[in-house]
Parts: sequence; C-alpha cells; structure tokens
Amino acid sequence: MQSELECLICLLNQALNTVILATEDINLQREVINRTADWIRQADLVQTPAAISTEVYRIVSELTGVDDPYKEIKEQTNQEALHMLPDLKKMINESADQLDTALHLAVAGNIIDLGIGHNFDLKKDVISILKIPFAIRSVHDFKKELYPGQKLLYLGDNSGEIVFDRLLIELILDHGVDVTFVVKSGPIINDALMQDAVTTGLTDIVPVIESGSDDIGINFKRASKEFINTFITSDFILAKGHGNFGSCDERSENLYFLLKAKCPVVARKLGVKTGDIVFKH
Amino acid sequence: MQSELECLICLLNQALNTVILATEDINLQREVINRTADWIRQADLVQTPAAISTEVYRIVSELTGVDDPYKEIKEQTNQEALHMLPDLKKMINESADQLDTALHLAVAGNIIDLGIGHNFDLKKDVISILKIPFAIRSVHDFKKELYPGQKLLYLGDNSGEIVFDRLLIELILDHGVDVTFVVKSGPIINDALMQDAVTTGLTDIVPVIESGSDDIGINFKRASKEFINTFITSDFILAKGHGNFGSCDERSENLYFLLKAKCPVVARKLGVKTGDIVFKH
Repeated sequence: MQSELECLICLLNQALNTVILATEDINLQREVINRTADWIRQADLVQTPAAISTEVYRIVSELTGVDDPYKEIKEQTNQEALHMLPDLKKMINESADQLDTALHLAVAGNIIDLGIGHNFDLKKDVISILKIPFAIRSVHDFKKELYPGQKLLYLGDNSGEIVFDRLLIELILDHGVDVTFVVKSGPIINDALMQDAVTTGLTDIVPVIESGSDDIGINFKRASKEFINTFITSDFILAKGHGNFGSCDERSENLYFLLKAKCPVVARKLGVKTGDIVFKH
Repeated sequence: MQSELECLICLLNQALNTVILATEDINLQREVINRTADWIRQADLVQTPAAISTEVYRIVSELTGVDDPYKEIKEQTNQEALHMLPDLKKMINESADQLDTALHLAVAGNIIDLGIGHNFDLKKDVISILKIPFAIRSVHDFKKELYPGQKLLYLGDNSGEIVFDRLLIELILDHGVDVTFVVKSGPIINDALMQDAVTTGLTDIVPVIESGSDDIGINFKRASKEFINTFITSDFILAKGHGNFGSCDERSENLYFLLKAKCPVVARKLGVKTGDIVFKH
C-alpha cells in the first residue's frame, strides 16, 4: 500500500518515542526530530508506510549511536509473555472454538502492554480482547488450508507477541501443517529477532528464518533468497501486524492478514474502523 | 510555559487537521506539511505552545488563501450549542451545586463534539462529563471573589463553547460581579470572534472586547491597549482552555484556569493526568 499524509505525521511520533529510549540528551533528541522533519519533506508517498517509517529508526540509530533502542523492552516483553503462557494455554484448551481463541490471542499479543513490570490486570485485558469480534473474519477460508503437508509461512511481528503466536502455531501444527516462522535479520522497532525466537522456545517447535533485512514488514528488494523462495513456494502465508500488511498487501500470494487496525490509514485500506481487529484473506 | 518536543509533533497534526478543511488539493496539503516541517526545524522551544502553533495556521492560510478554515464549523457549533441551551439551563437550575455544574458545563463545551449534525447522544455526553470530578478544584478561592463590584475578565476559547460559558457567566453576574468577555480579533483555529459573541447572545449580557490579535491564547506583544488595561485592572481572570493557559500561566495577575488537560505536556505542567479536568487558581 502507498502512504498517506497521515503517515508523515506518524513519523515524528515514532521518532520521539524511539529517541527517548536511546538517549536522555535533549539536544540529540531535538536533532533527531529535525532530521525526521527533513525526511518528512523528502519522503515519497508512493512508498509503503513501512518503508518511510524504517528511515526514522535509521536516523535515531545513526545520530544516537544506539543500534537497538528497544533491546531492553523486547527482553521484558518476552519474559512477561512467557510468564502468561500457562494461563493462555488454558484459555485455548477450555474454549469452545480453539482456533478462534488462538487467533484472538495472537492479536492480543500485539495489543496488550507487556514488559512494564508485573501487571495483575494483564489476564483481564486478554480476556476482554477475546470478547471482541473480528471486523473481518476469514476463518472459513483458513480452516480449508489446514491439512497435512500444507506449507504455511508465518510472518512474525513484535517480541512478546511471538509467545502468543506460538500458541496459534501449535494449534496449526496439530493439523499436520508445516510451519516456518519469520523474524527480522536486524533490530527494527520492537520486532522479533532470531534471539527472541530462541528465548521464547519458537525455534524448538518450527523452523525459524530471517527476512533478510532490518526493515519494518518485508522489504522485497532487500529480502534474502531463502526468504523469497520460502515466501513464493508456501501454500499460504499468515502475516501479523501493520508492517507486514502494508508491505505485503499487494502481493499475489495466498495471504492472510492478522492485525489490529491501529491507525486510520490502515483502517481505511481494510474498510474497517480504527481499533477493529481483522483476520483477512 | 515553554514548549516541549511533543509540541513539535503536535504541529503536524494541527497542520493536517486544518489544511483538509481549507483545500482538497493534495499537492497543496503536502506543501503545507512540508512548510510545517520547515517550521518544526526552526521553532524555538522557549516560546509557548500557543506561539509555535499559531505559525502553523498562518502557513495554512498563506498557502491555501483561506483566511478562516474553521468558519463553517464555528457556525455549526454555535447553532448546535444554542439548540442545547434550554436543557443546559435546566441542568444548572436543578443541580444541588449550581456553580460546580456551571463550571463543569463550561469545560464540557470544550470537550463534546458539536457541529457535526444532530447528535442525539449529546445530552448524554454532557451528563457523563458532569460526573467527572475536577482533578484540581479551586472553587473555594473562586467563591470568595464573587461579590458586588468585583471585576472579572473572562478569556474565551472556542465557538460553540462560548454558549456554555454564557451559563457560567450568568451565574457569576447574579453575584453582582462585572464580567468582561474576551474574543480573538481575527480567525485562529475555531476560536470565538466578535461575530460568535453576537450570534450566541453574549454581547447582550456582558461587554465583549477583542484580544487585539489573531494568536492562539493571548499574545501580550500584539494585544490591544484596551485588552492589556482590562487584563491588569481586573480583580480576577478566568482563562479557558489550553491556549489561554499556555500563554498566561506565568503572569502575576489573579488567574483561574478552567480546562481539560488534553495533552501530556499541559497535564505534566498542571501535575494531573492527560484527560483530567482542572479548575486551578
């Protein structure tokens, strides 16, 4: 998808949210804002939101010298999510529609505030998300894909969230589907890297490959041969979150997008309301 | 108050929100975003948020040729608020603490979505705001100011909202206080102008003067002699909204600020949470 003017505004938010993690130096923070303002002038809206946003994280890293500003947050969210794992498994096992519950949990992992210490309301937050109906729900199509020998490529999104993904993947594996999980090749926002896949036990249950780059979503120009080959030969692809949606929505492969529409640009593109959760074939 | 980095981010939001009212020309909209990005680079955070924001509206008007992008919205909000007036009066008359209710309504006028057609839930929205307690509540001090011969300067904020202000002013007039109301001298955002004071009947009950400029809040360097003279000789001043707060909070006069803290910068300055309502001496 192409970017819109609203995406340019979002760039400054992303710059500030990230630079305050990288440095407390107010002058350096201001320099990042100014360099982002320069980028806003130049950014071509024909590019995807993922592409124009990725540049912002490059600016932060270049000016602050901090390669991975979200490193600590990612570790915290993984631990917090792992801590919840037994409860989450119980939720799925006890539910009438296990696939629907697992899909909801996979979205919940992207929404709830993980990693900010022990939050005793987390379980309550998750339960409230389970009650939200999908605004678009391609479960009928998806179920037809679930039979032995089918190859699924699962495009991961954030750290922490991947623990929730693991539960959905376990359910899919039960159908005899071959699942390959994708992490980024280098730090970008709080996206899961190979280390996160190892920490959260994902590498124990499925092959995990890298996207080939440190871009938000998938940058097909920088993707590895291994990734591209797996992408085009998979029977179906499950893509989590905004970044993967915005960079893969015009591909011709058999894609399922699982996300919360967090901004009006993505919501309009999907024909839903901001805040809606979507599982779209 | 000085501006913070978050205020720079807010500038782009304000630019986009306003330019889409002024023109549908996407190239012109982009030009406004780019000029705002230039301004973000230059803006000195020593200035108030009101001052750095005002420039954004100048950019929109200069590039689009539209002097008053909010003109239609202002007329709609006035009419919608006037339509509610009998109900609002009834709420005050029937309440146990009329001043508290009138103060709440004066804040509600700034919060509720007026002017977007007939919204049958508006009354419900107002009633829900009446239930929110003030996070800071200087009513005790304020009541001591309410006796015959006291001079109050009331710094207005938006159109529509001034109908709600009128109810608070009527209650203050009942105590024999002399009230003067202030509107802007020229269009800025959806702030009330003299025409709005006439339309909403405010000029029938109190003297209405102009701030002397078309700046957000009060620009003391551009204010009229009449305004400055009234400001410094009033016994107390009631200032509505962010703009008046951010431009008057360091003045030594006897000020009361009545607002909802809509952003983290103002909330931090007041020591409250974003979203809190405040009546602060």
